[in-house]
Amino acid sequence: MSRDRVPHLVVVGGGFAGLWATRALARERIRITLVDRRNHHLFQPLLYQVATAGLSAPDIAAPLRHILGHQRNVEVRLGEVVAIDKQARQVRMADGSTLDYDSLLLATGATHAYFGHDEWADDAPGLKTLDDAIALRRKLLLAFERAEAEPDPEKKAAWLSFAVVGGGPTGVELAGTLAEIARHTLRNEFRHIDPASAKVRLVEAGPRVLSTFPEVLSLKARRQLEKLGVEVMTGTPVSHIDGQGFKLGDQFVPARTVVWAAGVAASPLARTLDVPLDRAGRVQVQPDLTLPGHPELFVAGDLAALNQANGKPVPGVAPAAKQMGKYVADVIRARLHGKAAPGPFKYADFGNLATIGRMAAIVHLGKLQLSGVLAWWFWLAAHVFFLIGFRNRVVVLLNWAVAYWSYQRSARIIFGDDREDRRPKR
Amino acid sequence: MSRDRVPHLVVVGGGFAGLWATRALARERIRITLVDRRNHHLFQPLLYQVATAGLSAPDIAAPLRHILGHQRNVEVRLGEVVAIDKQARQVRMADGSTLDYDSLLLATGATHAYFGHDEWADDAPGLKTLDDAIALRRKLLLAFERAEAEPDPEKKAAWLSFAVVGGGPTGVELAGTLAEIARHTLRNEFRHIDPASAKVRLVEAGPRVLSTFPEVLSLKARRQLEKLGVEVMTGTPVSHIDGQGFKLGDQFVPARTVVWAAGVAASPLARTLDVPLDRAGRVQVQPDLTLPGHPELFVAGDLAALNQANGKPVPGVAPAAKQMGKYVADVIRARLHGKAAPGPFKYADFGNLATIGRMAAIVHLGKLQLSGVLAWWFWLAAHVFFLIGFRNRVVVLLNWAVAYWSYQRSARIIFGDDREDRRPKR
Repeated sequence: MSRDRVPHLVVVGGGFAGLWATRALARERIRITLVDRRNHHLFQPLLYQVATAGLSAPDIAAPLRHILGHQRNVEVRLGEVVAIDKQARQVRMADGSTLDYDSLLLATGATHAYFGHDEWADDAPGLKTLDDAIALRRKLLLAFERAEAEPDPEKKAAWLSFAVVGGGPTGVELAGTLAEIARHTLRNEFRHIDPASAKVRLVEAGPRVLSTFPEVLSLKARRQLEKLGVEVMTGTPVSHIDGQGFKLGDQFVPARTVVWAAGVAASPLARTLDVPLDRAGRVQVQPDLTLPGHPELFVAGDLAALNQANGKPVPGVAPAAKQMGKYVADVIRARLHGKAAPGPFKYADFGNLATIGRMAAIVHLGKLQLSGVLAWWFWLAAHVFFLIGFRNRVVVLLNWAVAYWSYQRSARIIFGDDREDRRPKR
Repeated sequence: MSRDRVPHLVVVGGGFAGLWATRALARERIRITLVDRRNHHLFQPLLYQVATAGLSAPDIAAPLRHILGHQRNVEVRLGEVVAIDKQARQVRMADGSTLDYDSLLLATGATHAYFGHDEWADDAPGLKTLDDAIALRRKLLLAFERAEAEPDPEKKAAWLSFAVVGGGPTGVELAGTLAEIARHTLRNEFRHIDPASAKVRLVEAGPRVLSTFPEVLSLKARRQLEKLGVEVMTGTPVSHIDGQGFKLGDQFVPARTVVWAAGVAASPLARTLDVPLDRAGRVQVQPDLTLPGHPELFVAGDLAALNQANGKPVPGVAPAAKQMGKYVADVIRARLHGKAAPGPFKYADFGNLATIGRMAAIVHLGKLQLSGVLAWWFWLAAHVFFLIGFRNRVVVLLNWAVAYWSYQRSARIIFGDDREDRRPKR
């Protein structure tokens, strides 16, 4: 059997959608090339823990080569895809090379978006990659250092003022954890500031935080945030951000540290497809996750926009991405075996969880609604369970256990960005 | 009792010497300011494990503020000291501020030195800080990626050629671990290269590796390295390094990855003291670790050069730095209580350990000489024991246990240096 007769699937993106599709095809007679510009799969739901120094970067990432090392029909390629030529069935890479495909799965996910205010990017960094998380950790920890060193009380207060823009799950997690760090983790460590006096504000343009949850749970989340010491400001969009603070309408609020958790936009690769995109830049796919007229071209995960038969859009969450990935594998498998294609993709909603901070979370599973400590244990169990495939699950658990019982955060190490130190001094 | 009557000790550097001195003075009536340009104490003996992806950065570092949080007579200050005015008894910081002191302990350690070949720094990075380690990890892992992507066999071989310059403990550890990664960790993960075919060379200008050990142990170390797959090249100094390889005499050896572990030089702060320095830039101290004519100015750790009464120089190792730190605290304590100063500093040599790789090490304790598996267990036990003060000792142990039994290295995550990705794409 000559190798070129085996059909070639190119998967772009080693996130939940791409990786789950690839793994589901392990036993099929198909050649798979998985392309990613990073060498690791990232467990994004815990990225905020790296940013807030609760976990270290390798705790929530695993090398793609390692995950797929024993799957012989897969080749992992480190590189950046810059364009798709869907007529020629060719993927173009940043280094000028190309990959021909028989089928293509595009799953490059989303990045953060500033809604036409890209000038805010420097002063309000977002959180999508490990590099973002390490940079944010550095920024948060240095703010307390600057406050400690600043003699002027007003400037000191501005360094101790933190704002998180966006009341979705990431914004809520960040604000809650920041309040915990200020109130507990840093206790006793400074001599010229009281870290507990830090202001942590969560700013949401809409009427409530965690708006995908029922209203009563949103309200409970808000109360839990306030109990942790977070000031929740809803109903007014941020109109300006700079290095000194932000504006809500005409009101200027001093805050040297602003974090962006307000918007995501699909990866820009979608634009090279030459197909209609939705407002967030996502590709409008057909019910089988392909493009019209291109049954060989699949889009899945956060890059795909799909309204299901029941009228509900598929949410941009990890379980949906995994399900889409597995669905694409099902369609490809059916084709390989000459069988009928499965019906349209249906998102199986197993519920919605959000963590808020130490022993605080909300859970919505059908009729079950939980909040507080019980919800938090539920959230913890679910997240540790889903770290499957990460051989450091035990380490993560241990780090968490220590962190939660001692209020300590093991990864409070500032590094990066001092390149001049790498040069020898003589 | 007014605050300004309490004498003020400034400690520059939160390494072993500075931290051990500070902790030893916890119960004294003295005000201590510990200045470091990094926020963490680093367990440097395990830095090579971070560079080779066995441990993550926070595993071997702890925030200075956390370590000293409960020691009320200490203030930790994040900042860089640029000069010492020993007449005015004043420390000058990079931000323009100054610190007046009654006593000063300088313990800023060493950095790597290229012996007049600073142009090698970019192509042969060294290993002294966490940033160095993360950059080196990235460089090592990317070399295998480049080899995988390279179609030309000769260029491929150059990417699979690694050289470590310097046969001291760090060079030996790096070379041994690199060979282990190539032969075991990366097995099965690539499709176009056999990582086990990588060449790992250890280049030492002197006649033998680990030259501070007895000759028979050096020889055993060399044999263990060779068994791990390392080619040991002794007796000729490197005469040239660039991005393509290095020269040994006139012979050019292709190697895209060269690591520098050959030389250290004292921190450049010593030069602002206006006192005689030795060849490596270290401060020649008196037997009580002070400067002539300046009993209030102590130098300890890798920054200090001292020949003991027995004629032997104090070695630049962690136990010596800790002992010097404690000795300085003893001298200061005696002065505070108006007691006689302790005798001259004497280094208590409890032995010498070096690890070589998986289950391979050498140990020299007086008449006891060990090598191989037993020595390795000894080394492991000692290093885990000395991680005291690092609350993640259990995590480190666990990571090691998993790494050594599975040949896997949990921290094989490439990050850093792709700043362009942090910007939103729209």
